[in-house]
Amino acid sequence: MTATPADMRQQLQQIIAITPFARSMGARVREFAEGLAELEIDVKPELMHQHHGFVHGAIVGFMADSACAWAAASLAGDVVTAEYKLNLLAPAKGERLWARGKVLKAGGRLLVVQADVFAVDQGREKHVAVALATIAKAGAA
Amino acid sequence: MTATPADMRQQLQQIIAITPFARSMGARVREFAEGLAELEIDVKPELMHQHHGFVHGAIVGFMADSACAWAAASLAGDVVTAEYKLNLLAPAKGERLWARGKVLKAGGRLLVVQADVFAVDQGREKHVAVALATIAKAGAA
Amino acid sequence: MTATPADMRQQLQQIIAITPFARSMGARVREFAEGLAELEIDVKPELMHQHHGFVHGAIVGFMADSACAWAAASLAGDVVTAEYKLNLLAPAKGERLWARGKVLKAGGRLLVVQADVFAVDQGREKHVAVALATIAKAGAA
Amino acid sequence: MTATPADMRQQLQQIIAITPFARSMGARVREFAEGLAELEIDVKPELMHQHHGFVHGAIVGFMADSACAWAAASLAGDVVTAEYKLNLLAPAKGERLWARGKVLKAGGRLLVVQADVFAVDQGREKHVAVALATIAKAGAA
Repeated sequence: MTATPADMRQQLQQIIAITPFARSMGARVREFAEGLAELEIDVKPELMHQHHGFVHGAIVGFMADSACAWAAASLAGDVVTAEYKLNLLAPAKGERLWARGKVLKAGGRLLVVQADVFAVDQGREKHVAVALATIAKAGAA
Repeated sequence: MTATPADMRQQLQQIIAITPFARSMGARVREFAEGLAELEIDVKPELMHQHHGFVHGAIVGFMADSACAWAAASLAGDVVTAEYKLNLLAPAKGERLWARGKVLKAGGRLLVVQADVFAVDQGREKHVAVALATIAKAGAA
Repeated sequence: MTATPADMRQQLQQIIAITPFARSMGARVREFAEGLAELEIDVKPELMHQHHGFVHGAIVGFMADSACAWAAASLAGDVVTAEYKLNLLAPAKGERLWARGKVLKAGGRLLVVQADVFAVDQGREKHVAVALATIAKAGAA
Repeated sequence: MTATPADMRQQLQQIIAITPFARSMGARVREFAEGLAELEIDVKPELMHQHHGFVHGAIVGFMADSACAWAAASLAGDVVTAEYKLNLLAPAKGERLWARGKVLKAGGRLLVVQADVFAVDQGREKHVAVALATIAKAGAA
């Protein structure tokens, strides 16, 4: 891969721009390097909350899954999530969510990636979820 | 629990009505009985697609997680998802998604629930995801 | 695949015979067909118990993992477990354990398999665990 | 908890001594502190191998599950594994396996724990598996 980090980041932002769900979430790239991806969103309560006033688990899942897939894509190009497991550690409460995906193992066709999701509530950060995912290179499922 | 199935179903629809994310997805109850819950949504491509033109994995995750949580709630009242694992079996393509959650084991504080998610494409149904979740009674995490 | 079910079953029993851990567990094939595998073991308390007098979770995991891998092997030949998730539903107590693995989806390189593990205690059967696994064809990880 | 680390460690070694499966594996405590547990075993090929000559996945699962349960026990006393997910990263090959479990979140009744398993082959260490587990305080399932 001869792309520079700036190229890679720009390419990812273009993918987000043509991904309706990611765009509707307002997903932004924080970091994007080989084997690592971070994204963040501003919480829009009227769209993203569940009935207890926290961010809906599906949004937390979106953050974790995206961080894993993007981190894998940084090494493997076009990828498909084969599976992930998500543990919710605390209610996701606050004005912003961010997630970091890190590749633990990059095999020829499968990548194992871990993600951590954080909520920022009045500036204070809380670890709200952890995920472990298996991502396949596209065409390799 | 002395609620009738019709009571339970109405109660669940009221919860959806006050859950911004579920409402924005247009989630509807298909079935709701002791240990079983089914929901469905119409696919809105401009909101729900990813960049290959399939329904975004986060929506599939929402369907699986909701089916699990609702199935657990049918037996245990207010619940919290502790964790789930989702295997994506095929791209989610079509005009409608539906999911069924079934409680496999209801313990005193934890429930183990399986969910299956289906996509309906021009009337033909495809199994697109399977999930296994651990749901905790509220206050029991 | 032109092998008959009897051929397949014999082949699997030969693999067990050269697999030290499976042999030391006394694993036997119950059923082996395309997309399905069942195995059973007699519980040897002096080897398999944990400190509460139940069968150790590692043995339950062995049963689930083996059932998944064998079910996948029935369709895909030589395979490798990429990952599995195991939910323990009840203490595994009794004189015998058996497990059934069923392929939910066989892709070109990955197979998704579900397993259920049962304990037989004085002739009565109990569902003690459920697993969901991703199995890769050998050389495809 | 007023037990000293040395007390805790000794208590854990006594539990292993009365746990037939852990004892038959030759499990030893490496580290045991609040929220952290490490164990190791010497590989006995004639008991622990699978048919390709690597350590059987069930042994890797035993290491991961034990590290998670012990790490949880360091904070919560008597515990039960509710579920775990294990990703196998590389074949487990060598003369020794060791595992580290770290508590990521200790809730009132549930603990989320991560484990990493390493194989030592001719003195060189390899990361062979990662696990994410939900452990319940005994009586809280």
